[in-house]
Order: sequence, then structure tokens, then C-alpha cells
Amino acid sequence: MSVLIDNIGSLVTNDPAHGGLLGAITDAAVVLDGDRIAWVGPRAELDGAGADERLDAGGRAVVPGFVESHSHLVFAGERAEEFAARMAGESYAAGGIRSTLAKTRAATDDELGGNVARLTGEYLAQGTTTVEIKSGYGQSVPDERRSLQVAGSHTPFATLLAAHVTPPEFAGRTDDYVAMVIHQMIPACAPLAGWVDVFCEVGAFDEHQSRAVLAAGKAAGLGVKVHGNQLHQGPGVQLAVELDATSVDHVCHTTDADIEALATSSTVATLLPAADFSTRNRYPDARRLWDAGVTVALGADCNPGTSYTTSMPFVIALAVRDLRLSPDEALWAATAGGAKALGRDDLGVLRPGAVADLALLDAPSHLHLAYRPGVPLVVAVVKNGAPARGRWT
Amino acid sequence: MSVLIDNIGSLVTNDPAHGGLLGAITDAAVVLDGDRIAWVGPRAELDGAGADERLDAGGRAVVPGFVESHSHLVFAGERAEEFAARMAGESYAAGGIRSTLAKTRAATDDELGGNVARLTGEYLAQGTTTVEIKSGYGQSVPDERRSLQVAGSHTPFATLLAAHVTPPEFAGRTDDYVAMVIHQMIPACAPLAGWVDVFCEVGAFDEHQSRAVLAAGKAAGLGVKVHGNQLHQGPGVQLAVELDATSVDHVCHTTDADIEALATSSTVATLLPAADFSTRNRYPDARRLWDAGVTVALGADCNPGTSYTTSMPFVIALAVRDLRLSPDEALWAATAGGAKALGRDDLGVLRPGAVADLALLDAPSHLHLAYRPGVPLVVAVVKNGAPARGRWT
Ligand SMILES: [Zn+2]
Ligand SMILES: [Zn+2]
Repeated sequence: MSVLIDNIGSLVTNDPAHGGLLGAITDAAVVLDGDRIAWVGPRAELDGAGADERLDAGGRAVVPGFVESHSHLVFAGERAEEFAARMAGESYAAGGIRSTLAKTRAATDDELGGNVARLTGEYLAQGTTTVEIKSGYGQSVPDERRSLQVAGSHTPFATLLAAHVTPPEFAGRTDDYVAMVIHQMIPACAPLAGWVDVFCEVGAFDEHQSRAVLAAGKAAGLGVKVHGNQLHQGPGVQLAVELDATSVDHVCHTTDADIEALATSSTVATLLPAADFSTRNRYPDARRLWDAGVTVALGADCNPGTSYTTSMPFVIALAVRDLRLSPDEALWAATAGGAKALGRDDLGVLRPGAVADLALLDAPSHLHLAYRPGVPLVVAVVKNGAPARGRWT
Repeated sequence: MSVLIDNIGSLVTNDPAHGGLLGAITDAAVVLDGDRIAWVGPRAELDGAGADERLDAGGRAVVPGFVESHSHLVFAGERAEEFAARMAGESYAAGGIRSTLAKTRAATDDELGGNVARLTGEYLAQGTTTVEIKSGYGQSVPDERRSLQVAGSHTPFATLLAAHVTPPEFAGRTDDYVAMVIHQMIPACAPLAGWVDVFCEVGAFDEHQSRAVLAAGKAAGLGVKVHGNQLHQGPGVQLAVELDATSVDHVCHTTDADIEALATSSTVATLLPAADFSTRNRYPDARRLWDAGVTVALGADCNPGTSYTTSMPFVIALAVRDLRLSPDEALWAATAGGAKALGRDDLGVLRPGAVADLALLDAPSHLHLAYRPGVPLVVAVVKNGAPARGRWT
């Protein structure tokens, strides 16, 4: 079935063929054929040949659907009290990630699937048409396997976060846990995932442990992702580049050498400012990364501990205000940048042949995503060529 | 008509009778009678005598409707390009508040009313049941009068922002403009407003000019509000206290003497962090104000130049992250605090006799307003006792 989206006041394509970073076109139209884009251009050049359906954008803005390349949706429970204690500067002995681990292990598959459905629904309602989902609250072979199975029923982009936290049965024996991950978990889980990921951080997994897990994942055919340089200066960025990772995520603490390594690699720096917002962490130096030529993606990092948001528009607003990306750069990073962090060039872009994922804003231009923080501007979403949410008229 | 709101998992009343700052009750119910609250308490104590209608909160959280005590909704046009230039650190010669003045003067009453309706609708959709609206983009007798008429058809809380910017026909003659305000504008507009307000700031109106305008408004029977201490240390806070203002708004730059003066007055400090977010201004020291005993309100300050948001939940999230209020304090300031900034004690509180304005959150507690930034959690709103937005089941 073909769909004509007509009367678009301002269209962001991310296709360099239309000029500028965003390939923006005013007074535009888009034609979808099945789940792909068939045509993009100025309305004046539109061939009148009929589409099966016509959607009217009413002169408003259309952007590519946001591409979230970093989320942790397979969990049970929540940690609002821990959040409130952290904001008050208090320590919070109970809870933490280990409480999510315990609740996730105790949950049924249906409960976990319901949580993922709820949160991917929230993402979609605010214009996010692609969501990568990590495991990581199981940390045993059966619990990581079922986490990936749950994730895989909601997204084609599932990541085995094999080394997130040392589980209680391995307390004080992190090396033993890493050995189990390498010899049992990765072989059992690799068929269910596209990437392997580790939390390379002081107090989590050190450089040696992280490299061992990532190398084993890579040998099993997985792509590599790294949680790196979030809370401290550390080896995560360099390790990611060394292993030709698809992305290194957080990247809040960087040396000149880190930035140089990223700029000369194909590894994407995925920035997650909502996590820095909700933990009062230092924001990454996005301006410097971008200006050095690093490919930058933005993600919301939805998880119940450090970033319980699904709003990519909120992330864009933070990226402009506190990371000093321009509104254009932030939108690019939340769409085409996210796609690159998933190794894809046919998502996050509106050009013939690309996946037909897009969002209609109740605004005259994409600038309003940052100009109007907190306002839910996404009024309709098309995913895989089909109207998925909202109203067009 | 009476309405029972039943099965409230967590209820914030702001009524000290129930203990704590928020007077929170778990497993609660509320009975509405007409536009007022008739009963509030634990479900177990609910008298079974039938209400005409029953709404089921489904175990979720209910909070008082947010009370916005500072907005500028009577305008035409928008300034997204100016926002983008400011975020890039560039000056933007065209535009500024004078462009909004020109567009507002050129707009029809219907256009201005449509803009107010659109934005109050956005406020309501995110749980804000009371919105104060300022004039201030007319700055002539007829344009301020019609601005207040438009405001007054949407809210009982209209403020004459008599001295916002010197209009072009008085360029270089600010004292002459002030004289016109005192002798012509205030007499003509006072019957349409509850307060007089000035922008007391370097480059706008100085202490002498501000005092003259406010004193004239007060003599005409209006309450006093002041835009003070937003961009610089200044006389605004002291002037507000001297004139027994209902509120002084922004309050980002304060001396010890300012805080002491506020703490020993009945003047509310209304903090507007979304404006500081969208201008990269310094955030107010809310922690110090609160701890000194100052009454603190939070507002969104919706206007097209410096804070184009209508999201009180976004403001609460900023207040927790960057102003260091606790989630409880921030919610109180956005409800009961806002009501005090409008001189009311029957708004922003759920107790028998108070106005029946409340919001249902898709969350187990009000903590999620800050814990889940950017997520539109308000799923239903009751205003004046009647379901106004959203779905209860
Ligand atoms: Zn993560
Ligand atoms: Zn204002």
C-alpha cells in the first residue's frame, strides 16, 4: 500500500542530497510504499499519480522517527525512593541495581514483557520508532536468555549486557563471574543478541575483565558496545576503539587521547544526558566531541535506576541546553546518529529505500523540540509505513 | 453533582492535617460536591453513601492540580530562530521582545484568544488547572486593555504587566512611558486586572521607575507583583517586600539581605527555572530560600522568548535536579506555593471546601514527576469538579 504524506511545512530528511546537516525541505511531501520510503521532495515536484492513502501534515513539521540505541527495559520494580534520596544527597543502602536484579529474576516472563511493552509504547508515543534493548538485570544464563527473548519479541536490536553487575552468588568473585560469562553465558546467549556490552567502570568491571568479555562476545559473532567513561576517567573509550565497537556509551569523562581515538575510528559516541540529569553527573563535552569529528548519537537510556525516561524530545532539549549541541545537531544525533550506533544507514533518514519511520510535530519546525522543553509535541507517528500513533488532522 | 474518586494508591493533599509537608495519604479516596472538595481520607474511612459518579484511580497517584502563577500567553508569533541563535552563543539582532510586541499589536483579538486557548489547553493536558496570565506585549492603553480582556476570558487571574519593555514610540523616553502608564494605562486597565507587575531589571525599568508604576497600581487597588533579580543583582526583591507584593518572580540573584527580607515578609518567591533553562541563566538558590523560611512557588513562565513551555512536570524535574528542592518540596511549590503566589488558600490543596482541581498520574506516586522527566504522566484532570481531560480507566 502507498501513502502520501502531504502539506509538510518543514521536513527533516537527514539526507545530504537536500543540503545541510539535516537535509531540510520546506513545503514538502513524502510518499511511502509498504514499509519503505518511495519519494521525498518539494510538493511542487510531486507527481500527482495517486497514492492509496493521503495524510495531511497541516503545514506542520515532520522528522525521522527517533532512534534510541541504548535502553534497559527488561526489568521489574522501580526505584523512586532511591532517586529521591540521591537528589537529597543521601546514601541509600537498600536497593540499587541489585534490587532490580532480584525483582527481575523473580518476575514472570509475562511481567517482563508487559514492562517492555509499556515502555516501548511510551517511546513510540513521543516519536521513537526504533528502540535497542539490553539485557543485564538477569546476570545468570537462564535470566539473561529469557531477558533477550523478551527483548527480541519487541525489537530486532537486542544487546547482551553480560557484565552489568556482579550478581550476589558471585559476590567477591568477579573474576569467577567473568569466567562464567565467557564460557557459559555468551555461548548460550549469542544467538539471541546483536551485540555484547559491558559496564566498564570503577566498582563494576575493570579493563582486563571488560576486554575478556567483549573479546569473547566478538569471537561469538556479536558486535561490541561499551558503557564507558560515565563516572570516571577510564579505559572504556580506548577499549571500544581497540575492539572496533559499534558504540561507546556515556563518555562523560574524556582525555584528549580519548577524543582523538574516537575521531579516527568508526565507533559512535552515544551520549545519554538524561542519565546525567537524573544522577547529577557531569555532562559529556558534546561540543568538543562533535567538533573533533566524532560521530555522536543521543539516547534516553531508559532504566529504573539512573534514567527513568523514554522521552527523546527531553533528551534533545538537554543536549541543546547543557551539552551545547545546536538544535540541528541534537536532532541529527537522536535520529541518524542513533541509527549509526546500531550499524544502520536506512533508519533515522527519510530517503527512497529507507525504512518509513517518521513523526509529525505540532510545531512549524523541528527547532521546537528544544525551544519547547517538556511539551509533548509529537502528535502522530508512522512506523514501518503504517500510522502507529496519533492523529494527522 | 457528587463524584467519588476511589482507589487512589497515593494521594497528595497539601493539607497539614494529614501530616508532613504534602499531607500524603495512601489507599485514599476523595469525594467532590459540585466544584468543591467534600471529603478526603483513607478509603477505609469512606462513608459508603453513594456519589452520583465514581472514578477509579486504579491504585495510581492523585495530586492537586498544578497552579501556574506566572505566564505570558497573550502574544502572537514565535521566536524559535532567536532561541537557536542564543543557544549557539550568537547575538540575534532582529527580533527579541519587540518583535513579539509588534506581532501582538498587529494580531486580531481572535488570534490572541486562540493562542491563549491553545496554551491553556496544553497546560491543562499536563495537569495545570489554574493559570495566571499577564498582559505586557501591548504596552499601549488599547493593547494592554484588550490583552487583559483576552486573558480574562480564560482565567480569573489576570495581571497588568504595565512596564515590560519601553515600546518603540517611547524609544529613549522611558520616563515618559512610565508617566503614561501611571496616568493613563493603569486607570484604564485596573478594572480588568488583579495585579500590576513590572520588569525591574538593568535595561528595562529601574528602581525609581518600577516603584512609581507599582505604587500607582497599588493605589488603583491592584495587588503587586515584580519581575525581580532575574539577570542581575538588583532592587526588585527589596522593592517587592517594601510594597507588600504578593510575589517577586525569578529571584536568581540574591543577597543575604534579600533572603532575610523575603523570609520576614508575606511575599512569595516564585521561581521560574524553565526560563533559566532556555536562556542558560543562573538558577535561583532555591535550597537557601526554602531553608530560610521563604515561601517558594514554581511556575513555567510560558512566553515565546525565554521559556516556551507549559509543562509544570518539566519545571518540577528541573527544580529537583538543578534547584535542589526535594520532590516533595517541588510539588508543594508547584501547587500550594503557586496558590499562595495568587493569594489563595483554596487552590493547590485537597481538603473539604477547597476547589476540586486535581490530576491523575500514570504512576504509583508523585515522586515519578521528577523521577521520570519528560514523560507525560498526567493521564486525567478534574477542574472545578468536572472531568476535564483524559481517561480514568
Ligand atoms: Zn546503560
Ligand atoms: Zn515573566
